[in-house]
Amino acid sequence: MEKQTLLYEGKAKKIYSTEDKNTVWVEYKDSATAFNGEKKATIDGKGRLNNEITSLMFALLQQNNIPNHFISKQSPTEQIVQHVEIIPLEVVVRNVVAGTLAKRTGLPEGHVLRKPIVEFYYKNDDLGDPLFNTDHIAALELAVPQQLEEMKELALQVNSVLVQFFAEKNIRLVDFKLEFGTNAKGELLVADEISPDTCRLWDSETNEKLDKDVFRRDLGSLTDAYEKILERLGGNLHV
Amino acid sequence: MEKQTLLYEGKAKKIYSTEDKNTVWVEYKDSATAFNGEKKATIDGKGRLNNEITSLMFALLQQNNIPNHFISKQSPTEQIVQHVEIIPLEVVVRNVVAGTLAKRTGLPEGHVLRKPIVEFYYKNDDLGDPLFNTDHIAALELAVPQQLEEMKELALQVNSVLVQFFAEKNIRLVDFKLEFGTNAKGELLVADEISPDTCRLWDSETNEKLDKDVFRRDLGSLTDAYEKILERLGGNLHV
Repeated sequence: MEKQTLLYEGKAKKIYSTEDKNTVWVEYKDSATAFNGEKKATIDGKGRLNNEITSLMFALLQQNNIPNHFISKQSPTEQIVQHVEIIPLEVVVRNVVAGTLAKRTGLPEGHVLRKPIVEFYYKNDDLGDPLFNTDHIAALELAVPQQLEEMKELALQVNSVLVQFFAEKNIRLVDFKLEFGTNAKGELLVADEISPDTCRLWDSETNEKLDKDVFRRDLGSLTDAYEKILERLGGNLHV
Repeated sequence: MEKQTLLYEGKAKKIYSTEDKNTVWVEYKDSATAFNGEKKATIDGKGRLNNEITSLMFALLQQNNIPNHFISKQSPTEQIVQHVEIIPLEVVVRNVVAGTLAKRTGLPEGHVLRKPIVEFYYKNDDLGDPLFNTDHIAALELAVPQQLEEMKELALQVNSVLVQFFAEKNIRLVDFKLEFGTNAKGELLVADEISPDTCRLWDSETNEKLDKDVFRRDLGSLTDAYEKILERLGGNLHV
């Protein structure tokens, strides 16, 4: 497999083509951003940590037969995934109230939800990634109703798998964001990444934040927090 | 029927008890507010116009067998309605893009939607009436799923009736807000008001705004606009 031309550069990743048009090469960058890109930093080692953690997470989904784009980890900061067309929706699953859900509902941060909440946000930086309901999604033709149901169902399956997995590591999965894409065969796959950049992860006993809120809210060293996660997941801490 | 104690005073209406506990007395006020109460004014004659228009609208719904709280107009500024417990959701139906939908989606104001969009907003001034999806509504136990479906279905029925009715008067129903309540028998009823305060109404040919946007955006005399609506509806212009 060979890294060829840069197809896309996002806030945290670069995507390259390979000699196989159905496969792309992902490189995790050492950059952190928050608040729709308003807060930015370069953090040594972050790309490696997210690549390690996200590779473990996608392998876990594969063990649980949840269709996703992951093929293999290629290097400490790189992985190979299926080439998908990303559906421009962020699918957020929440088990505990935090962040914008507290602001939206007035429920206190830390409030445990009886049932998970699933939200769809339109991936659009200019509009500030607004919350959409199913009618907004239909009006903008972002996904057909059946895809939307399938995304919600898969997101809840991912949630069940991850909640249990993290609980065994003494970590509470507060909420997380997924993205979905369709491959050349038209299959709907979980895509993008699953890492402390895209999950809220709290220590089950102390509620210590071990995710990007450390960066958003200036709570200490982001890499220390991410290393704690990787360590508890049994990942490869030192390369 | 007798007006007794003040039960509730809102931005645009006062509600009084009567000798019948299942019936309340509504008085429309001469006040206009916008932007969650930030912009306020007293506008002579507005209460009467909204009472006239909303009485006509609810009578129209009754002719179309759409369950609602309206009993009778009592005076130029007053009406009698069933006592309902209001569900704290604003149900918005949109046929054409305007206002916050333009901001949320990036679609241009005036864009005609292929299918109406229905939105639920949590009635909560402190939180700024945020958009909710069905999971938010379930988490806050604001309505049960069956009620929610029924509200959406009724809102779309109201839309069909109103779109056709206004079109015959050369008025375009851009969008409108409904509230629902349950009466003592547990029946779900369209409640609150249906007026140029709660609808966007544009002249079909000139797109002249004949609704509260005249006040929100300082486009001229609000009562002139509301009188044009009442006149086209064949209502009682002068008392």
